[in-house]
Amino acid sequence: MITNLDSFRTQLQYPVLWGQMDAAHHVNNLEYMRWAESARIHYFEIMGMDTSFSGDGAGPILAWQDCKYVFPVTYPDTVTVGVRTTEIREDRFIMQCVIVSDRHQRIAAISEQSIIPYSYQALKKITMPETWIQKIKEIDGI
Amino acid sequence: MITNLDSFRTQLQYPVLWGQMDAAHHVNNLEYMRWAESARIHYFEIMGMDTSFSGDGAGPILAWQDCKYVFPVTYPDTVTVGVRTTEIREDRFIMQCVIVSDRHQRIAAISEQSIIPYSYQALKKITMPETWIQKIKEIDGI
Amino acid sequence: MITNLDSFRTQLQYPVLWGQMDAAHHVNNLEYMRWAESARIHYFEIMGMDTSFSGDGAGPILAWQDCKYVFPVTYPDTVTVGVRTTEIREDRFIMQCVIVSDRHQRIAAISEQSIIPYSYQALKKITMPETWIQKIKEIDGI
Amino acid sequence: MITNLDSFRTQLQYPVLWGQMDAAHHVNNLEYMRWAESARIHYFEIMGMDTSFSGDGAGPILAWQDCKYVFPVTYPDTVTVGVRTTEIREDRFIMQCVIVSDRHQRIAAISEQSIIPYSYQALKKITMPETWIQKIKEIDGI
Repeated sequence: MITNLDSFRTQLQYPVLWGQMDAAHHVNNLEYMRWAESARIHYFEIMGMDTSFSGDGAGPILAWQDCKYVFPVTYPDTVTVGVRTTEIREDRFIMQCVIVSDRHQRIAAISEQSIIPYSYQALKKITMPETWIQKIKEIDGI
Repeated sequence: MITNLDSFRTQLQYPVLWGQMDAAHHVNNLEYMRWAESARIHYFEIMGMDTSFSGDGAGPILAWQDCKYVFPVTYPDTVTVGVRTTEIREDRFIMQCVIVSDRHQRIAAISEQSIIPYSYQALKKITMPETWIQKIKEIDGI
Repeated sequence: MITNLDSFRTQLQYPVLWGQMDAAHHVNNLEYMRWAESARIHYFEIMGMDTSFSGDGAGPILAWQDCKYVFPVTYPDTVTVGVRTTEIREDRFIMQCVIVSDRHQRIAAISEQSIIPYSYQALKKITMPETWIQKIKEIDGI
Repeated sequence: MITNLDSFRTQLQYPVLWGQMDAAHHVNNLEYMRWAESARIHYFEIMGMDTSFSGDGAGPILAWQDCKYVFPVTYPDTVTVGVRTTEIREDRFIMQCVIVSDRHQRIAAISEQSIIPYSYQALKKITMPETWIQKIKEIDGI
């Protein structure tokens, strides 16, 4: 069980905005996935991926994600998001994002994503590029 | 495996908005969960729940959700969302939302949510109210 | 002063979503502009405009907008949005969106936008295409 | 004409997120108003306002806003937002937000807002509290 971000080599910080709260006075459930998306895109960039979502090489497509809500974030706060790859499969890789409330020093949410290599020109899945695998190993040592 | 919405007694329609698309020219991954949220809130209302998120009785809290992305929705389109309860447990119930692209007559995404009865005044989980169980049975015949 | 949508030839309807409300328990101020944007894009389409925002012809760019908030919309409701061109200038045209709460039968907000013809390839302003002027005249009889 | 933020005593920074871009590959027009809202709420807090939007004293309500789009922000970037009061009237005060792209060192957008003192319990406008006027003078020296 994850209790902190010590094992995450890639971490980002985002300010919590008042407008992210909904009528339940908590940051809306979607916003945790906005943070996960932002961290994921950053990770794709340090992997050297084409993030234009239109090139002729391999681009990333989100096949699945989940989010476990542990502790409701409220404004004002700042979140720290740890992001890493936990598993490389033949046709995809699995990422994990852990979102920590800086004010409360507690894990607020844990999200996992399944990322598939995709050709945005051919509009079909492609095999995991060797360069992606190498980069993930460099970044996360897995 | 679900192939259509025939078995869903509760269905809602939402117009796809241009502004829901992101720089990948698809409806952004978060927006599918906005549709799921909207359908879920409607379902809570027909269950007769207090959806003020502040009352002294039982209110719903989202403990977990996932989303499987099957087919990318683009503007212009309309989506039909089927929503139902698939399982009632001692301390929660599990909902399923299936999002169908009307233009393509295809399932675009499938999302599941875990809903926990919660006291927004005591700020703690409570047991599944008997009235919730009865209402879910009435609505979905499970 | 506008009191209803009778003079609007182009009208659209959007469901109000629970998730559009913020912690003040009103639909968030940004969401009125999402409705205005959605109506505007529809209007561009019936004008026959290229709305790819990447073509080599004239595309629309938003230079300015405002919004007067008259009455706070809350969930549940449906809004009807009237959209029209009120003025054609040499280098732009001015649109007006009026947002009506169906539940309360009241004007909720009035927004104006200034739209400039723009080349998304040359990345510069261009003169008002004659076809745009003709189409606006056809649609709104101005 | 404003060319930089030198005259703004209150400045905030926000990271630009990939997910804020729309299908035109620019940060969506609404997101500039999200930054303005975030800066405005911060300003309300340093004014000592009740920002619960439910108390029995004076709360702020947004009566009107506009936004002039000067330069399209894209990801990756960070924006600096300057916020100040430019005018105090009998029943409202006028705020100005200037949004600067850090990467391009250029003004991206200028937004003005009209804020009315409002009782969220009585649901009606109230006169400008003397404490608000004093605080604005302290903060901005106007």
